[in-house]
Amino acid sequence: MIPRYSRPDMARIWEPENKFRIWFEIEAHACDAQAKLGVIPASAAKAVWEKGNKPYTAERVAHIDEIEKVTKHDVIAFTTELAEHVGPEARFIHQGMTSSDVLDTCLAVQLTQAADLLLSDIDGLLAALERRAFETRDVACMGRSHGIHAEPVTIGLKFAGFHAEFQRNRERLAAARKDIATCAISGAVGTFANIDPFVESHVAEKLGLTPEPLSTQIIPRDRHAMFFATLGVIASSMERVATEIRHLQRTEVREVEEYFSPGQKGSSAMPHKRNPVLTENITGLARLVRGMVTPALENVALWHERDISHSSVERMIGPDATVTLDFALARLTNVVANLVIYPDAILRNLNQLGGLIFSQRVLLALTQAGMSREDAYKAVQRNAMQVWNGQGRFLDLLKSDDEVVSHLGSAAIEALFDLGYHTKHVGTIFQRVFGRQE
Amino acid sequence: MIPRYSRPDMARIWEPENKFRIWFEIEAHACDAQAKLGVIPASAAKAVWEKGNKPYTAERVAHIDEIEKVTKHDVIAFTTELAEHVGPEARFIHQGMTSSDVLDTCLAVQLTQAADLLLSDIDGLLAALERRAFETRDVACMGRSHGIHAEPVTIGLKFAGFHAEFQRNRERLAAARKDIATCAISGAVGTFANIDPFVESHVAEKLGLTPEPLSTQIIPRDRHAMFFATLGVIASSMERVATEIRHLQRTEVREVEEYFSPGQKGSSAMPHKRNPVLTENITGLARLVRGMVTPALENVALWHERDISHSSVERMIGPDATVTLDFALARLTNVVANLVIYPDAILRNLNQLGGLIFSQRVLLALTQAGMSREDAYKAVQRNAMQVWNGQGRFLDLLKSDDEVVSHLGSAAIEALFDLGYHTKHVGTIFQRVFGRQE
Amino acid sequence: MIPRYSRPDMARIWEPENKFRIWFEIEAHACDAQAKLGVIPASAAKAVWEKGNKPYTAERVAHIDEIEKVTKHDVIAFTTELAEHVGPEARFIHQGMTSSDVLDTCLAVQLTQAADLLLSDIDGLLAALERRAFETRDVACMGRSHGIHAEPVTIGLKFAGFHAEFQRNRERLAAARKDIATCAISGAVGTFANIDPFVESHVAEKLGLTPEPLSTQIIPRDRHAMFFATLGVIASSMERVATEIRHLQRTEVREVEEYFSPGQKGSSAMPHKRNPVLTENITGLARLVRGMVTPALENVALWHERDISHSSVERMIGPDATVTLDFALARLTNVVANLVIYPDAILRNLNQLGGLIFSQRVLLALTQAGMSREDAYKAVQRNAMQVWNGQGRFLDLLKSDDEVVSHLGSAAIEALFDLGYHTKHVGTIFQRVFGRQE
Amino acid sequence: MIPRYSRPDMARIWEPENKFRIWFEIEAHACDAQAKLGVIPASAAKAVWEKGNKPYTAERVAHIDEIEKVTKHDVIAFTTELAEHVGPEARFIHQGMTSSDVLDTCLAVQLTQAADLLLSDIDGLLAALERRAFETRDVACMGRSHGIHAEPVTIGLKFAGFHAEFQRNRERLAAARKDIATCAISGAVGTFANIDPFVESHVAEKLGLTPEPLSTQIIPRDRHAMFFATLGVIASSMERVATEIRHLQRTEVREVEEYFSPGQKGSSAMPHKRNPVLTENITGLARLVRGMVTPALENVALWHERDISHSSVERMIGPDATVTLDFALARLTNVVANLVIYPDAILRNLNQLGGLIFSQRVLLALTQAGMSREDAYKAVQRNAMQVWNGQGRFLDLLKSDDEVVSHLGSAAIEALFDLGYHTKHVGTIFQRVFGRQE
Repeated sequence: MIPRYSRPDMARIWEPENKFRIWFEIEAHACDAQAKLGVIPASAAKAVWEKGNKPYTAERVAHIDEIEKVTKHDVIAFTTELAEHVGPEARFIHQGMTSSDVLDTCLAVQLTQAADLLLSDIDGLLAALERRAFETRDVACMGRSHGIHAEPVTIGLKFAGFHAEFQRNRERLAAARKDIATCAISGAVGTFANIDPFVESHVAEKLGLTPEPLSTQIIPRDRHAMFFATLGVIASSMERVATEIRHLQRTEVREVEEYFSPGQKGSSAMPHKRNPVLTENITGLARLVRGMVTPALENVALWHERDISHSSVERMIGPDATVTLDFALARLTNVVANLVIYPDAILRNLNQLGGLIFSQRVLLALTQAGMSREDAYKAVQRNAMQVWNGQGRFLDLLKSDDEVVSHLGSAAIEALFDLGYHTKHVGTIFQRVFGRQE
Repeated sequence: MIPRYSRPDMARIWEPENKFRIWFEIEAHACDAQAKLGVIPASAAKAVWEKGNKPYTAERVAHIDEIEKVTKHDVIAFTTELAEHVGPEARFIHQGMTSSDVLDTCLAVQLTQAADLLLSDIDGLLAALERRAFETRDVACMGRSHGIHAEPVTIGLKFAGFHAEFQRNRERLAAARKDIATCAISGAVGTFANIDPFVESHVAEKLGLTPEPLSTQIIPRDRHAMFFATLGVIASSMERVATEIRHLQRTEVREVEEYFSPGQKGSSAMPHKRNPVLTENITGLARLVRGMVTPALENVALWHERDISHSSVERMIGPDATVTLDFALARLTNVVANLVIYPDAILRNLNQLGGLIFSQRVLLALTQAGMSREDAYKAVQRNAMQVWNGQGRFLDLLKSDDEVVSHLGSAAIEALFDLGYHTKHVGTIFQRVFGRQE
Repeated sequence: MIPRYSRPDMARIWEPENKFRIWFEIEAHACDAQAKLGVIPASAAKAVWEKGNKPYTAERVAHIDEIEKVTKHDVIAFTTELAEHVGPEARFIHQGMTSSDVLDTCLAVQLTQAADLLLSDIDGLLAALERRAFETRDVACMGRSHGIHAEPVTIGLKFAGFHAEFQRNRERLAAARKDIATCAISGAVGTFANIDPFVESHVAEKLGLTPEPLSTQIIPRDRHAMFFATLGVIASSMERVATEIRHLQRTEVREVEEYFSPGQKGSSAMPHKRNPVLTENITGLARLVRGMVTPALENVALWHERDISHSSVERMIGPDATVTLDFALARLTNVVANLVIYPDAILRNLNQLGGLIFSQRVLLALTQAGMSREDAYKAVQRNAMQVWNGQGRFLDLLKSDDEVVSHLGSAAIEALFDLGYHTKHVGTIFQRVFGRQE
Repeated sequence: MIPRYSRPDMARIWEPENKFRIWFEIEAHACDAQAKLGVIPASAAKAVWEKGNKPYTAERVAHIDEIEKVTKHDVIAFTTELAEHVGPEARFIHQGMTSSDVLDTCLAVQLTQAADLLLSDIDGLLAALERRAFETRDVACMGRSHGIHAEPVTIGLKFAGFHAEFQRNRERLAAARKDIATCAISGAVGTFANIDPFVESHVAEKLGLTPEPLSTQIIPRDRHAMFFATLGVIASSMERVATEIRHLQRTEVREVEEYFSPGQKGSSAMPHKRNPVLTENITGLARLVRGMVTPALENVALWHERDISHSSVERMIGPDATVTLDFALARLTNVVANLVIYPDAILRNLNQLGGLIFSQRVLLALTQAGMSREDAYKAVQRNAMQVWNGQGRFLDLLKSDDEVVSHLGSAAIEALFDLGYHTKHVGTIFQRVFGRQE
């Protein structure tokens, strides 16, 4: 997590102020539950809320850090500091709980907070993609397979495809959020030996979590693995959009361009440069998030009821994966929203191959006119290769090819060269993706 | 995919016989739809089913391979061979379709077939885990954090925890199966220029798939990425179970043992060895499946409407990940079902630390008896460290500690040393995991 | 390892015939050493060579497999079959050795054999790159950063850069080969309790290996990890070359093209297509090899003196990584050797930006003529942006810009537009890479 | 890079103060070279050193950051600030160079600085391992394969094995350091169009680097990939040592223990706990470093002469991988140096299996006494299985087995039960690893 690639709302989730606030809520709600059970005095629970419910300021955080240097234990440092506010009844705080009850439930809250921000990022991206998709729904452009001109699509279809992909990512993230949103307050090895399961249910409800069915001091790590794996998929989708834009911006294509503000310098050495640096950056950020999936998967097989090897991993990838993805999604949304589109270039590229993009339609027409598929393929390829080698335009050549003309006639050949033929189902596809055609 | 780690049902999904069968069904159903639309003669569709609907034998597969050596194109080789059976009306097969329509829809069918087998594997594992969990529900054993004795759990809780984890994995796999189960018959760049969307819907319905909302010659690869990422999570859970068994079987612990058949040799050099080789093997297989996640993620960002770099990756990880996981899940099920459990060793280990496992309960009792948490911690640790250093049993030491006795009294101290205290909520947890307590 | 992506020489290394041959040699050389030590009769060692030194035919392999079904142990099956040839003195074979002595030393031999093939593949690639580099040394072409035209380079420089990279890869692979080429015959836990270290030295020498300084039944897996990590780096370099070619072949650039044989079909649907499918394939194969690095790294931390979790991983990635890389390197060599280069397109692209590629030189000239860098940058950018927006050619605009002209004069401006200025050090660079300029 | 897992010397390498210092040196040395070539006035080069050669204080860093907010370009911000110190002759700074010349050469310097620290960390670890190895050279302990008792080794052999592994890692890192230590000052696309190669050679020499043979604005990323892959191997070796210690510390084994200071608290809930938290932490840190290998490999295939997708990856993994590895190596050294070793427990475990560890030796003796290997194996296994099932000690059983006694006699059987037999070659192995036996 480095400032250059962080946004404040996501970064704040991982700051000590937020963490301690969540710890406080867990402990205070647990006290309420313990008081209801009669395990601790009601006055103690009340004291915790009345005297302890204050913001965790930078000063308090620093003080807790000081205490931790002595105790070498973060949760003990926290409760020690809290006791300074609450007074003698503080001894009832944390009764029957183990540190992991606090740490793991806190992580669950942080990850759901992070997931909510990411879901909102995706909503922003979806909105931008939808707007641009409808704006460009009918802007016919070259479709390319293998980087080679194939048949026409529309710019809008590209945006719509990304929209469909991010709808899926939204669903996946919502599922991953649910997977991670559990609360464990079950004691040293998860048996509730020293604490009633009611405490867990109570805290879970107050924090918007569900009780973990079976914890073993810790929440099982397959949940976190699934969460980070899902972020890895989203990062890869992001890279797909970024790669498309980078391709379309390259000098020879230049159908789109990242917005370039008037004063911006593209290169210290070459003043003419306007580079797709934002989408290149997103490509790199995607690699980073993807690189965190395997460590998260390796965290699953902890020893027996738990070991603590996952902890250092999560201290790093918890913030890094969510902050990086948040930043990258916001940047991508911005790129999409402001992407400059060049209709002239799009049209020029569409016409570049002299009509070759209609080759399949000609092939089908010849088949329907009675030629075998094999013969038709040969006839089309024969003319296509001439165009490819710069020896004429496809339509002209076909009209000079006796075998082709004898099957179709000149007028019918010309009628095949029609962009509308390719875009006639765009509305259908938009209906599928957006539930509306315009 | 190597025979040693393959089971026939899963391997068969990836054999040419199954692949060509699926291709045939795609093409034949597509012909039906085209005939309904009036694009091709009804007689042609009928001929395909009546003359072409035959098993793909080894001979036919070999013949198709021969043809491919000439055409250098697998789908063309396939339709060429099919034409030999169907006769002249075969020219209506594959009309308006592109190879990827067949290949990608086929892959979707294969992956759903594979997912169904894997779901059934998980069901088998869940059944074995549930049976063993209830058998050992009340077998108290040592719970360990950091590999160090903590407090008692039961063997049944271990099985129950794995059951809960594989319930989650089942849900994740079901979601991933749904994600992957789409059909694309949309032509060269996904615009339906040469084929009506009705063909896609028809084939999808017949094959138990849903139509892909927006394909671009191919089905978007975020779906496959999610599928393989999910397999990676399941593999990691499998490793967790395997690791637990390996730990419990090590000579110094030896609470459980993989079933060892009478004639089996553990080591060519050391005749006394009985090694947890099955769970070690599963550990390695988990690494393999996990290693396929990143290539699947890297497949997402294909160029423009598609490039073919994903293909070689999927040719390998499609079979390898599913076959390996299927084999490993079956092996794990077998290990769990036949695991030998040694109650004597379990009890011996439970008592190894001279009662230290009750330390927290003593701590809590002291707190409730009025000591500050800090003083209580010191009193307990003082005695615990003596036990740890081999200077007596915990109960005896506590009863000789004036400060402790003054707060609790000897009888109350003894009453704290009670296993039932730790297992009293096992039923509650079983209820959560299995919906029943016995 | 699938036939489609395998070449016979590399595949053969991993077949049982080769494996058993290596096992035989290890056992037979070990017998020689044991005989020299007087541990076994000299006649026994002689008998092994005289009666056992026969090719491992398919029949023998099948017979060994039959025996293994009974013994459930591969090395015992092997020695049992060998005993059928050698007779009663076969009981002296494998004395004091453990299976891993045979298995791990065999793997070392196989990996060095594989490394030798890969080194030879790289030599082939280097030769092709060198030839193409000198052929195109002076073919000026557009250099691109961020996919955007920057300043001129030459096609030869591209090849030379790949050559330099594969020289480094050759060195890395040679180091990795050395790392992996050790022999361990040290017994059940590596202590030589039952076998003299002389046996290890003797076998090592005969097989071209060095004795493993400290083995623990097995050769430590950091060696294998380094080997596979090195393959991952090589795969990534391969992907770099493949990506460059894919970019240069895309329709709008089309400066190069993979060789396309006359009868080849690019697309079943679009007869005009000529796709860079070989380099796309190499891109996917690179992902596969890279995906095997992490499992190899995870194999390092085996438990105590050894566990067997690494075995299944190596059974798969040993063949898969080497066979795939061998195939891909050969394919890449073929692509490079036969790459079609289009000088016209190269020139057209070079001129596409109307001279903008000289912008930096103009900037420098203005600075040298006394303008501040900031002012010069503004002057150049002002004109560059006009060109970028299609409002003229760069040279013309500069000659109409009073500020620029006042500093440089028209003639001097024109003189700056000189390709030779950019290529003047190509010879120097070739000297560095190839040790010769022509 | 989070403070908890950072050490100041390594962290400092990645701080702006160090970065700007390196940038200054690159620019200043480049000015010297340009002055020698007569490209810029000698007075300018002199001015840079005399007026600009001052420490980069926090104030200067902040000021550069301010400028960058306007210029949106880091190198321009840097040279702008430098100009404020140097005066008008500052316009000669950076002539003919491109930002990457500075950035990439700086990264090379930072990575070599980091490598030097890591090499020194490894030296520290090697020293600790060597000391502990000789201390415990003859402390016989159980060797374990598959977690099951096998035959005796010594504690010293374990340390020696790790020493040998880290010797190899030292060599690998030295090679990776050399790979990364190159200087590129070659201009916008690496052609030296605007700058003489002499500048590069001069700066390289002054900074202890070698000139990059062929750069393309940037240094090729296979170098960095190899560097990070090497760190991944080292991290995995570290995990191996950590895993061994975690195993040996588990309660049932407890042969060693991480040093536990008097006031330390192992658990807030269970006062008796002494957990191997340092080696667990190292295990997690190893996962993190390993997770950075794949992003580094994905950075290799940049587009054409360069794109900037690698940059964000390196901004994160550059510091994170080196800082984390440095911290973990130092922590591991500390763990090894202070590891508490329990000879009593080691001996107890060694005797746990009632002499089964001598089974192979008995097997060999029987073979040498004329039994077939198969019969001998059966005889040994028959008795071994009784021991395993708790029905007696191995020596007693063998002496009651008529077949065994008839071949060996009682006295000879007893003589086989000798620890010295297993440790007789420890000196030989130490000689190989350390070049000395004591």
